[in-house]
Amino acid sequence: MKELNIDITLCTTMKKKPAFDRLEFGRNFTDHMFIWNYSVEKGWHDPRIVPYQPITLDPAATVFHYGQSVFEGLKAYHTKNEQILLFRPDQNMKRLNRSNDRLCMPQIDEELALSALQQLVSLEREWIPTEEGTSLYIRPYMIATEPYLGVSPSKAYQFMIILSPVGAYYKEGINPVKIAVENDYVRAVAGGTGNAKTAGNYAGSLKASEIAEQNGYSQVLWLDGKEKKYIEEVGSMNIFFKINGEIITPELNGSILEGITRKSIIELLEHWDIRVVERKITMDEIRQASIDGHLEEAFGTGTAAVISPIGEFLWKNEKLIINDGKIGRLSKKLYDTLTGIQYGNITDPFGWTLKL
Amino acid sequence: MKELNIDITLCTTMKKKPAFDRLEFGRNFTDHMFIWNYSVEKGWHDPRIVPYQPITLDPAATVFHYGQSVFEGLKAYHTKNEQILLFRPDQNMKRLNRSNDRLCMPQIDEELALSALQQLVSLEREWIPTEEGTSLYIRPYMIATEPYLGVSPSKAYQFMIILSPVGAYYKEGINPVKIAVENDYVRAVAGGTGNAKTAGNYAGSLKASEIAEQNGYSQVLWLDGKEKKYIEEVGSMNIFFKINGEIITPELNGSILEGITRKSIIELLEHWDIRVVERKITMDEIRQASIDGHLEEAFGTGTAAVISPIGEFLWKNEKLIINDGKIGRLSKKLYDTLTGIQYGNITDPFGWTLKL
Repeated sequence: MKELNIDITLCTTMKKKPAFDRLEFGRNFTDHMFIWNYSVEKGWHDPRIVPYQPITLDPAATVFHYGQSVFEGLKAYHTKNEQILLFRPDQNMKRLNRSNDRLCMPQIDEELALSALQQLVSLEREWIPTEEGTSLYIRPYMIATEPYLGVSPSKAYQFMIILSPVGAYYKEGINPVKIAVENDYVRAVAGGTGNAKTAGNYAGSLKASEIAEQNGYSQVLWLDGKEKKYIEEVGSMNIFFKINGEIITPELNGSILEGITRKSIIELLEHWDIRVVERKITMDEIRQASIDGHLEEAFGTGTAAVISPIGEFLWKNEKLIINDGKIGRLSKKLYDTLTGIQYGNITDPFGWTLKL
Repeated sequence: MKELNIDITLCTTMKKKPAFDRLEFGRNFTDHMFIWNYSVEKGWHDPRIVPYQPITLDPAATVFHYGQSVFEGLKAYHTKNEQILLFRPDQNMKRLNRSNDRLCMPQIDEELALSALQQLVSLEREWIPTEEGTSLYIRPYMIATEPYLGVSPSKAYQFMIILSPVGAYYKEGINPVKIAVENDYVRAVAGGTGNAKTAGNYAGSLKASEIAEQNGYSQVLWLDGKEKKYIEEVGSMNIFFKINGEIITPELNGSILEGITRKSIIELLEHWDIRVVERKITMDEIRQASIDGHLEEAFGTGTAAVISPIGEFLWKNEKLIINDGKIGRLSKKLYDTLTGIQYGNITDPFGWTLKL
């Protein structure tokens, strides 16, 4: 494993840490951050850890106008025996480069970027909360910085990593969420940017989520942009169904984000000799399965929640209730196993966890 | 017309102005910029003109991660009798608010924002180049600034206006461009953000443009995201065709940007008693018209070029040559008339120009 030689400037005074038992997602940031600059002339240069501080950019910087911006999200977990674990961070770096390619942004050395991530998290280890279910959220991201208003790929970029201690996602036990199926707005279409983790996808999704929330639903279920027929994602998570004993998830089609939790769920189920069928799934099929009493479980998967069981779909004024609105047995088992591996409470047979 | 009360801080030393006869688009910026802040608590507050300076944002600011960002583009023109004209700036402010709505960003008072724009351009009038075909490009834009990693609309925003003197688009006469029809990548789909002027649309378009340029084509022609059959836009312009005497442009369908030049061309042609047909147009139809010898003209429309005649389409390895690769008569007449109005050389019968 290659190591990145980083210039480190430490804070003179450290921040007061927030109460670790009352953490909100993404509100508090640690004392330091990592910055790495890129220019066409110099390539990647000047990797440094500095005190967490504002970013200063020209008002004409590309990111503000033409949105070249990609990001990743993962977590560092504090184990009971005082170890720090990362979960499949190599997968995040791989995906970052796939996003970079789609957005005409430069490739980054995945091993060196991961080395920077490890060094930053090590430095900030006091910020990793120890309470059950808590973690340190890690946000690597890259933005385009050239001050130029022509519509073309920027010639300068900045890669950064910031860290945020986050509370348990499920503070009061895992309660299934209510999901509104979205019939008007579209998240992505094949040939677009749906399978890249880029800022614009999230900006475009806000409107539908806002309307769903106003109607009492947590998130929207996105249908495909062509026929509004096939199921794609739920909120910013991938989705799985258990129908008549079979586990099904939408196949990767160019508009669905390739979730690392999604991939892990599939591999975990296969390890248990349960085959996951990746294929197109229509909302009609889900409705029919619900009516027939075959829709046993449905859940979203992502870094934040790991598993987010779904208790209800609202589709065209019809409510489909799943498993009486309670978490399913498989959802629970997957959640317990995956979080067990992440927190080091269960042996990791896959080599997914990386000890710091 | 309402006027915005702006706090003004002038530069102590002015920049050296670039040679106005060798200006590149979007590279040089004037001495001052306008900034206006918004927060959910205070609403719009603290409008100010300050020396052009870097923007300072928290590394967790929403714009970097979730891409809430909208912009506009228009120009100030120097007339032969020393007047400054703006072209339909009210339309830009209207569209800005439509974009804001789609991106869950706050509405801005259109008249007050226009007042800010006028005050800034007045202050910077020495920066408006006087050479034929030159102008001062005006870039109003709004970004989300709340330092929060939750995926939800930001609670704080910054609206800014920056100015950039730009050279003549056609330095060596109007030469028609070669356009590659895009069959893989998609710019937008109905239900997405295609009709909003938001950063993510441009980020997503770079890859296709890059490939087209590598093959010797200036821009791509975007087809619809559903069937890759219907014509949408060309590069970042709207598109018009003259087929067998009839003027046709794709109808606004939710994924096409509502261009102000597009709208003006339609109104200008109607003023000349030439009806423009707004309807769906397939690429097959254009090919057939070309084969039949009925494809008389094709041109893009936008703020930068005004009219950009198209001399060739490449579609599935077939080249369709239009008007022997020369500018058409109608394209030329529209260009001359519209730029004539913009530069005050032709009487404006529409009330489109706003004198500063």
